[in-house]
Amino acid sequence: MVAYFATEPESLLADALNGFCRVHADLVVRDAGGGYLRARHPSPGRRVGLVSGGGSGHEPLHIGFVGAGMLDAACPGRVFTSPHNRQILEASRAVAGPEGVLHIVKNYTGDRINFGIAAERLAHLGIPCARVLVDDDLATATDGPGPGRRGTAATVLVEKVLGAAADRGADLPELLRLGERVTARCRSLAVASRSHALPATGDPAFELARNEVEFGVGIHGERAERAIPREPLTRLLERMTDPLLAALAPAREEPVILLVNGLGAVTELELYAIHDAVERLLHKRGVTSARCAVGEFVTTLDMRGFSLTLMVTDRETLELYDAPVHTPVWRW
Amino acid sequence: MVAYFATEPESLLADALNGFCRVHADLVVRDAGGGYLRARHPSPGRRVGLVSGGGSGHEPLHIGFVGAGMLDAACPGRVFTSPHNRQILEASRAVAGPEGVLHIVKNYTGDRINFGIAAERLAHLGIPCARVLVDDDLATATDGPGPGRRGTAATVLVEKVLGAAADRGADLPELLRLGERVTARCRSLAVASRSHALPATGDPAFELARNEVEFGVGIHGERAERAIPREPLTRLLERMTDPLLAALAPAREEPVILLVNGLGAVTELELYAIHDAVERLLHKRGVTSARCAVGEFVTTLDMRGFSLTLMVTDRETLELYDAPVHTPVWRW
Repeated sequence: MVAYFATEPESLLADALNGFCRVHADLVVRDAGGGYLRARHPSPGRRVGLVSGGGSGHEPLHIGFVGAGMLDAACPGRVFTSPHNRQILEASRAVAGPEGVLHIVKNYTGDRINFGIAAERLAHLGIPCARVLVDDDLATATDGPGPGRRGTAATVLVEKVLGAAADRGADLPELLRLGERVTARCRSLAVASRSHALPATGDPAFELARNEVEFGVGIHGERAERAIPREPLTRLLERMTDPLLAALAPAREEPVILLVNGLGAVTELELYAIHDAVERLLHKRGVTSARCAVGEFVTTLDMRGFSLTLMVTDRETLELYDAPVHTPVWRW
Repeated sequence: MVAYFATEPESLLADALNGFCRVHADLVVRDAGGGYLRARHPSPGRRVGLVSGGGSGHEPLHIGFVGAGMLDAACPGRVFTSPHNRQILEASRAVAGPEGVLHIVKNYTGDRINFGIAAERLAHLGIPCARVLVDDDLATATDGPGPGRRGTAATVLVEKVLGAAADRGADLPELLRLGERVTARCRSLAVASRSHALPATGDPAFELARNEVEFGVGIHGERAERAIPREPLTRLLERMTDPLLAALAPAREEPVILLVNGLGAVTELELYAIHDAVERLLHKRGVTSARCAVGEFVTTLDMRGFSLTLMVTDRETLELYDAPVHTPVWRW
């Protein structure tokens, strides 16, 4: 349908990373080998370095969240392809603190394997390493064995909270415990009304009928189990919010952080209108949303869709979320 | 093709503004009548208030740029429709400084008329008012009489520079002179490979062949004079950059500010790759880009396209661009 504005599909990522590092030269530096981006002014006093990464095509994740208060380094793989374990190893060696390095990994087989190999090589070098696995996508929840839930938009919340905890001097076991606690308390669901276009050909990754919505789509364009007929927005949002609340079961005194995340081509008007409707739904369900972020954080190239993420918080998580951050995307 | 995620097309704007004001409640306040948004913490010491506005559908323009260092108030009209003169009048009365109010207006007939009526009513009330007209769109440059060039993405640069000047205590004639100087020194060009979808029906506003690019498209989806065959990105960017440079003719010692602006559905990877290629072109032409912003600033709903803006600067303009700002979108 639409070809990409790119010199060559193969050079799209390299050119984009060049541009990104030039525009944000005050905040990020690319290593000489090109395998990772690191914070120019990392948080002082961290005992543990924070590294994330994954396939590209989800920008601003992860590169937009490198900087003081969040990630020390991000390793971009090719579009929708896990980074090589060497990238992760080099990034980890570069930013490891005196007590080691924490990997924040979205739950996909390729990422698990490559971060895993890097972790083994780090162990060999005597650098302590632990992993927090983000697996928030409720659309892929199953009772039986299998790969488990995919990691999607909650990743930015996890990176923010762990970044603040690392700033406060948390050690590796503390970060791991906190990471397991917060990832267990966030879930996401995504829908789309038009797939992304494939960078190589411009063809849509999949076809949807005009009056259908893909319910539970993945951030690489993984098809959902079902497409549902389009229905009024509030009904669609109930269909998303209620299962999230059922899975998380926040207590009365536990406010949530709400993330309304555009997947690429949804307008800002829609995202804020969606936010407004979800806030009303949460209120109706007796749930307090203590913080909210609306925008594009974890995208699927130019997909026309959005995701909702809820993270159940306590006082500590909220304090960590509120702590100062200075990255290309989030600054407060 | 794709219906909007909205309760009703008519309520899209109202819902979005509700959401926007809730999410950014620390920075913006909506007036009781709903006609405008104003800064919660306006710049102290301004002698002149700054008001802008226009049709919605270009978000984050203008509402995302309300705050200290930029706009005191923004008046959102319905999608692609000028705000009512009453909205502009009320916003102006609310934020006028001791020396009056400055209107920053994109050059469209409806906006000129409605800001003009508001200005007359302000004069009647004894509130001094002046207007800076932004007319950067090179695609609509003609030699003869007519409506003149349209106002597009340069608006955010003009708002930034004038906001900083107002912070420094510039009076109305000084702001007017500065505004005329900077608007004369910026030009933009936009291209698209897919039109936006109409909010009411989801149908594309216009059809483009797969291998065509609309060259010189407007931010309301105004068709260009021509669609050109798709060509390598660098060639397309030359076709955009060279006329901008020819129109602006920067001297050797005059660096430019470069704005790479997504119109809605172009991926961040593409925008940064475009930036990278334009920087190389400017370098080849002997032009220094002193500052650069890449992202979505002035959109056309979900159009798949982008615009390039160049603003020729001097030391004063650069200082004003660099001055602190605290809005929902720009913070430095």
